[in-house]
Amino acid sequence: MGKQRLAFLADFVEAITRRARGGEAETLKALARPASERARVACAVLMGRIGDAARVAVAEQALSAYGELTDDEKVEFFRSLRDDHGVDPQAIRNAYAAWDASPDAKAVAGLFRAVEPSRQALLRRLNLAPGATLRLVRMRQDLLEAIREDPDLAPIDQDFAHLLASWFNRGFLTMRRIDWNTPAAILEKLMRYESVHQMQGWQDLKRRLALTDRRLYAFFHPATGDEPLIFVEVALTRGIPDAIGPILTAPESADPAPADTAVFYSINNSLPGLKGVSFGNFLIKQVVAELSAELPELRCFVTLSPVPGFAAWLRRQDDPRSKAVAKALAGDWQNDPDAVHAMHPEVEALAARYIVEAKGKGGQPADPVARFHLGNGACAQRLNWPADFAPGALASAHGLMINYLYELDRIESRHEAFVRDGAVAHGQQLADALNR
Amino acid sequence: MGKQRLAFLADFVEAITRRARGGEAETLKALARPASERARVACAVLMGRIGDAARVAVAEQALSAYGELTDDEKVEFFRSLRDDHGVDPQAIRNAYAAWDASPDAKAVAGLFRAVEPSRQALLRRLNLAPGATLRLVRMRQDLLEAIREDPDLAPIDQDFAHLLASWFNRGFLTMRRIDWNTPAAILEKLMRYESVHQMQGWQDLKRRLALTDRRLYAFFHPATGDEPLIFVEVALTRGIPDAIGPILTAPESADPAPADTAVFYSINNSLPGLKGVSFGNFLIKQVVAELSAELPELRCFVTLSPVPGFAAWLRRQDDPRSKAVAKALAGDWQNDPDAVHAMHPEVEALAARYIVEAKGKGGQPADPVARFHLGNGACAQRLNWPADFAPGALASAHGLMINYLYELDRIESRHEAFVRDGAVAHGQQLADALNR
Amino acid sequence: MGKQRLAFLADFVEAITRRARGGEAETLKALARPASERARVACAVLMGRIGDAARVAVAEQALSAYGELTDDEKVEFFRSLRDDHGVDPQAIRNAYAAWDASPDAKAVAGLFRAVEPSRQALLRRLNLAPGATLRLVRMRQDLLEAIREDPDLAPIDQDFAHLLASWFNRGFLTMRRIDWNTPAAILEKLMRYESVHQMQGWQDLKRRLALTDRRLYAFFHPATGDEPLIFVEVALTRGIPDAIGPILTAPESADPAPADTAVFYSINNSLPGLKGVSFGNFLIKQVVAELSAELPELRCFVTLSPVPGFAAWLRRQDDPRSKAVAKALAGDWQNDPDAVHAMHPEVEALAARYIVEAKGKGGQPADPVARFHLGNGACAQRLNWPADFAPGALASAHGLMINYLYELDRIESRHEAFVRDGAVAHGQQLADALNR
Amino acid sequence: MGKQRLAFLADFVEAITRRARGGEAETLKALARPASERARVACAVLMGRIGDAARVAVAEQALSAYGELTDDEKVEFFRSLRDDHGVDPQAIRNAYAAWDASPDAKAVAGLFRAVEPSRQALLRRLNLAPGATLRLVRMRQDLLEAIREDPDLAPIDQDFAHLLASWFNRGFLTMRRIDWNTPAAILEKLMRYESVHQMQGWQDLKRRLALTDRRLYAFFHPATGDEPLIFVEVALTRGIPDAIGPILTAPESADPAPADTAVFYSINNSLPGLKGVSFGNFLIKQVVAELSAELPELRCFVTLSPVPGFAAWLRRQDDPRSKAVAKALAGDWQNDPDAVHAMHPEVEALAARYIVEAKGKGGQPADPVARFHLGNGACAQRLNWPADFAPGALASAHGLMINYLYELDRIESRHEAFVRDGAVAHGQQLADALNR
Repeated sequence: MGKQRLAFLADFVEAITRRARGGEAETLKALARPASERARVACAVLMGRIGDAARVAVAEQALSAYGELTDDEKVEFFRSLRDDHGVDPQAIRNAYAAWDASPDAKAVAGLFRAVEPSRQALLRRLNLAPGATLRLVRMRQDLLEAIREDPDLAPIDQDFAHLLASWFNRGFLTMRRIDWNTPAAILEKLMRYESVHQMQGWQDLKRRLALTDRRLYAFFHPATGDEPLIFVEVALTRGIPDAIGPILTAPESADPAPADTAVFYSINNSLPGLKGVSFGNFLIKQVVAELSAELPELRCFVTLSPVPGFAAWLRRQDDPRSKAVAKALAGDWQNDPDAVHAMHPEVEALAARYIVEAKGKGGQPADPVARFHLGNGACAQRLNWPADFAPGALASAHGLMINYLYELDRIESRHEAFVRDGAVAHGQQLADALNR
Repeated sequence: MGKQRLAFLADFVEAITRRARGGEAETLKALARPASERARVACAVLMGRIGDAARVAVAEQALSAYGELTDDEKVEFFRSLRDDHGVDPQAIRNAYAAWDASPDAKAVAGLFRAVEPSRQALLRRLNLAPGATLRLVRMRQDLLEAIREDPDLAPIDQDFAHLLASWFNRGFLTMRRIDWNTPAAILEKLMRYESVHQMQGWQDLKRRLALTDRRLYAFFHPATGDEPLIFVEVALTRGIPDAIGPILTAPESADPAPADTAVFYSINNSLPGLKGVSFGNFLIKQVVAELSAELPELRCFVTLSPVPGFAAWLRRQDDPRSKAVAKALAGDWQNDPDAVHAMHPEVEALAARYIVEAKGKGGQPADPVARFHLGNGACAQRLNWPADFAPGALASAHGLMINYLYELDRIESRHEAFVRDGAVAHGQQLADALNR
Repeated sequence: MGKQRLAFLADFVEAITRRARGGEAETLKALARPASERARVACAVLMGRIGDAARVAVAEQALSAYGELTDDEKVEFFRSLRDDHGVDPQAIRNAYAAWDASPDAKAVAGLFRAVEPSRQALLRRLNLAPGATLRLVRMRQDLLEAIREDPDLAPIDQDFAHLLASWFNRGFLTMRRIDWNTPAAILEKLMRYESVHQMQGWQDLKRRLALTDRRLYAFFHPATGDEPLIFVEVALTRGIPDAIGPILTAPESADPAPADTAVFYSINNSLPGLKGVSFGNFLIKQVVAELSAELPELRCFVTLSPVPGFAAWLRRQDDPRSKAVAKALAGDWQNDPDAVHAMHPEVEALAARYIVEAKGKGGQPADPVARFHLGNGACAQRLNWPADFAPGALASAHGLMINYLYELDRIESRHEAFVRDGAVAHGQQLADALNR
Repeated sequence: MGKQRLAFLADFVEAITRRARGGEAETLKALARPASERARVACAVLMGRIGDAARVAVAEQALSAYGELTDDEKVEFFRSLRDDHGVDPQAIRNAYAAWDASPDAKAVAGLFRAVEPSRQALLRRLNLAPGATLRLVRMRQDLLEAIREDPDLAPIDQDFAHLLASWFNRGFLTMRRIDWNTPAAILEKLMRYESVHQMQGWQDLKRRLALTDRRLYAFFHPATGDEPLIFVEVALTRGIPDAIGPILTAPESADPAPADTAVFYSINNSLPGLKGVSFGNFLIKQVVAELSAELPELRCFVTLSPVPGFAAWLRRQDDPRSKAVAKALAGDWQNDPDAVHAMHPEVEALAARYIVEAKGKGGQPADPVARFHLGNGACAQRLNWPADFAPGALASAHGLMINYLYELDRIESRHEAFVRDGAVAHGQQLADALNR
């Protein structure tokens, strides 16, 4: 930094520590510097030799200034995180040499210290500000978008991901049931975050959590307060459902017999900034445990899931059979029961092939939802076609849905076979369709 | 591992995943293996290719088995953490070579991944078990003791320290006022943890938190629930107190004039396993903020602190003046007002020298309590002798106590001067005594 | 009761006490008797010699059976309350004779016991059932409707009123602020209960309680849980508002200057069954106290109230002046600023006369809302015309609204003058209008 | 009241309403009148024509002034309640005449209004002050003591009893389990209120509620907040215990078999001012319900109760057999196993006679504890002698204790037989002893 910069820096620290007492958030604006400069300088100060209490105030300034940045300025900010808060190459060389000479645990520790980018410490210090954790999650969301434009920023996401995975460790999460006695502010968030089967307002929301045969559970983290991190919607039914319509619109079941099946029909991650921090698996397992204890009559835990990649995959196939099905599906079959009946075996056959055999990156199942549930140790139990007539579902999956079955005593072995051999557990219906 | 080991391992995973459903904690005992083996194997399994849900059960097994270990077995366990859960040297070499060839952020990220000991991931996975965080804090306490016997274990403490500092980030802590409406289970812990001025039972405790002129505040962390991590006891007084006796034993002040001074007379860290994770500074600052808002008449925030290193330091001095004072203090001066009066100037002179000039490791003040408060930006305002007649205080400090003054508008500059120049802020009384 | 009745009675008690253990609510239905008989018999049993625990079960049966009654059966039930659960005339005669002979406090006590209808004890025993209090409030609502058909039932309302006034004593109520963090189930009730300025759904509700310049407070009773008994909606404004439209529809005020006025623009009693139990006065006073403490800049506490009786009163006047105004108001003046301007002085003159001089039953002000606020010690400060263009407000008050002013240091003297002399406190504007 | 009085009264109201705004409680003291006069005048004002809000302030003044009264002044105050806040004889005569002429429900209502002493309304208005309910309960405690000195005050207790029974209706109570997580302020109250088996401090308390085989439940009322109204202590055991010592002092049971018996070994009413308002029965029943649901292995619900009237009753007997036993019990038998063995059959025989046959007022069992449990529908199951060596228990019952058995399916029939026929349900052991 030049001399002028340093003078500003001194003013800055002076200003913050003086103002912090008065509780004013306007400190830096008073210095009449652009937000981009304030954000960068505050980060520099935060890494300097200031007291802990001043750090809280400086962290607040840094995050506030960040909040005022334009998209372009954010990219600049991330570049500064990458370039100004990295490592000291000479320190790495020295530490490596020491380790190379004597590769014991102590030398590893020294090397670790040299290799950890200083931006990890910076993020921890930014987290001192009130409400900082959620703001850092949102900052990472910005970063992920920025990386799409500028892949060279990718390395710094490793530091965000590393820290957030540590902070959002499952041991720190609490599950809460959400119902009609939940504060409206939380319910409103759920409506906004639901993207699998969007809600049409408060009455729709109420139907999903206030009926006796509907449940909604979410994970929360103490540092992000009333922000639901992930939530799952459950319907209690008799038998495994084969279409989403009745679940979303039906009134309460009048069946006097108790439900025997819990259907997970919508799972939503709320915060894109927590991408890669896995909650879904834990949430499903804990809901299964809670429901089993509360309702011992439940025998079957199953999803009713979308198949978001089916239509695109089908478009990419160029064998005659696939082409024929694709062509038929391009028509107006929805209102033509005969057409549905006729196409049914072929649609199932191709859908089974897509789920069981189609692979994407790293040999994983091509379908992202399949990847998630199969990785959790579930079984692709049953294809349902047509099961969802929402425009989005028609466009992405020709209305196809799947039930993934969670069988507690087979989850672990299925998970293992999936990870080790890429084996896709599937039910008899899919097996039959594959042989068609 | 040998073949037999592997067979056991398979049994183990099988057993855990089968039993986990039944909720039984007795899985491994049933396998009739010693706890030390179970703990080690569970850690190995935890790092293997098992599903997330199984991890929760395995983590529980590992921590339970650890809980059964003898001190010697714990040392063995820590050695296995060091030796079996470290790094892959070849991976380090490769990552270093890549970085050396092209030292960009991406290469740093790769190097970081190679250098992070796998035990960090292990600790994060152990944290999946219910209540694990507190158990890991206690495990670190064991480790710190083990290191005293075997310094070669020290490097792995870096991993514990690193993780705990991240988890116990100040942003995750909540401060609560503790009073007579606090659950007895928490109050009982406070009694056990108070070590500066020990409590003599429930009536003593009640005097410290239920009187209108007494306060007690503590930090809590969501993952450790009702465990107070650190707490500070406060007395509201008129003027700065010069002895601890009246504060510990006096009934409620009958003075109708409102208090003008808040005295921090006892600060206790509860969990030795959180050594080095700094809370005290934040707690004091937040209590000052809270009291200022609630009681605007308060003008002065000050401690009444012990001087634990004074007696030992004095013993080590061999100049005639020090020797004379040490000799006089060896006598029975407590019950001799004349003796006290006569010795007073000399005791103060040496105490001032101890606080202001005596240095320990790294040029820091020799006295640990002085180090803490001066590092926080406080000022050594006033010596009080004799101020504490408890046997411990007589033995360690000849009854000397100090008031450290927290002046909000000077904290930052004092902190900076202390860090930069080692300057010890002190009041006029100490300045005078130094010149004696 | 005849013999057959008695046999049934024995079965009944037997059945209840046997079934109560099983927690089944179906006891009496099993006896295959109509609900009206079950309700009456359960009341008889409740007044008999059964144990306290059995009473809980029988009270539950009585209230459940009541819940199944048709309107006509309810009238029958109330007649049975009047005729079967009254007093013993001979006991009254004896007690009166004893008192007449020696009219001391003891004799009064005896007479009181004889004169208290046994239905008061019955109602207290019905209250043993879970959730009974709210059900009894609803029963009284039915009773008030039944009395309109059959005025001879009126005397038993005295017993309901007496008991409910005692149970809903202000000392048992708690005030809560309602905001966007309140459970949706409570918010939904508010939407239903708001009848002064009806809400158009959740967005409308949110505008009334989540903006920084809007507040909503309600009284709750421990025995009726989440049922808001009465609530008041408040807008914080600069100056006294003269129309309701901006309050109901305006976005948050962007005025940087703090509000100086709190406007109570809607007060609703939720439960018709609590008619005559006065809460409104206490609620307003407590909200004034709470807002004063929180926002010291508030100078003025005022309502913006409807005038529900104005149009009907005007219709009843037959002096030429009133007739002229009534005629003009019958036209389409709403969209004719010139007409409004021309009529303004005359409308105000008559409105002032209505508020200040028109009397109803017992010499009280004719307007019910005026009665309430003037009785509370408020002052009819200002007429606003036209202020409310909602169809209901146009029909009942030609769009007129009034600000009643609550001045803490004059409330008591105004209340006293109102009660003693019927004096209607009013502002200068009304005084001027009266002289027109 | 004379003229001077009236002038004071005006000052008084003026002062209160002026001061109330300032929130000062010192209003009346400023008027320099003795507390007894202030209390009386405030009550008079409260019954006058003042506004609701002023009533809150006046009620506060009345209760504060009452709190300053000496015992003699309290008696005077109660006399004024009796004489100044009673009934209007002429109104009674008129209402009676009207009823006599036409004895319908309406006339009864009129008579009821005339006969209800105005002090009931006064008490309801006093209850407007913050925290008034508990203060009124304490006022009744004073009244009950005053009545012992001056039985002519008894009639006004009817009004207190009537109101408190209505306010403390079981429907308004909530049961809470008390354990080691309960606020210390509540636990401290329990220690003070426990009078059956007094507690020796916090360790003793902890043993009674923190061990896994101990429970403590209490009833609370919303208006009296953290004041436990009644509480019961429970031990979970195998088999029915025959002595209190092991329950009070034994460490946690190490028996791996689950408990089959819940022993209610101490029931305490906390507030003497609630005498006659029955809670105990409901509390026991609800604890039985709660424990049954939580611990299905529990088969037997039983008390271990004192027999407080046994020694006094035995002293009053003058048959030779009783005299012989009384004489033997006067000796030092406690430390003489042979003596105990020898006396055992005779002590049991007389104890059985005392429980089953001895009657007091109204033909009820002479022993008050027996009266309570038998009235609840319990059975005097087993005599235990000697079972309690505490000095009090030796003095009042020669160490005798009884197990009363609560059998859910026989409670109602036993209650009925007890009420109707005075039948004392008892077990085989007592039956045998009676025949001795």
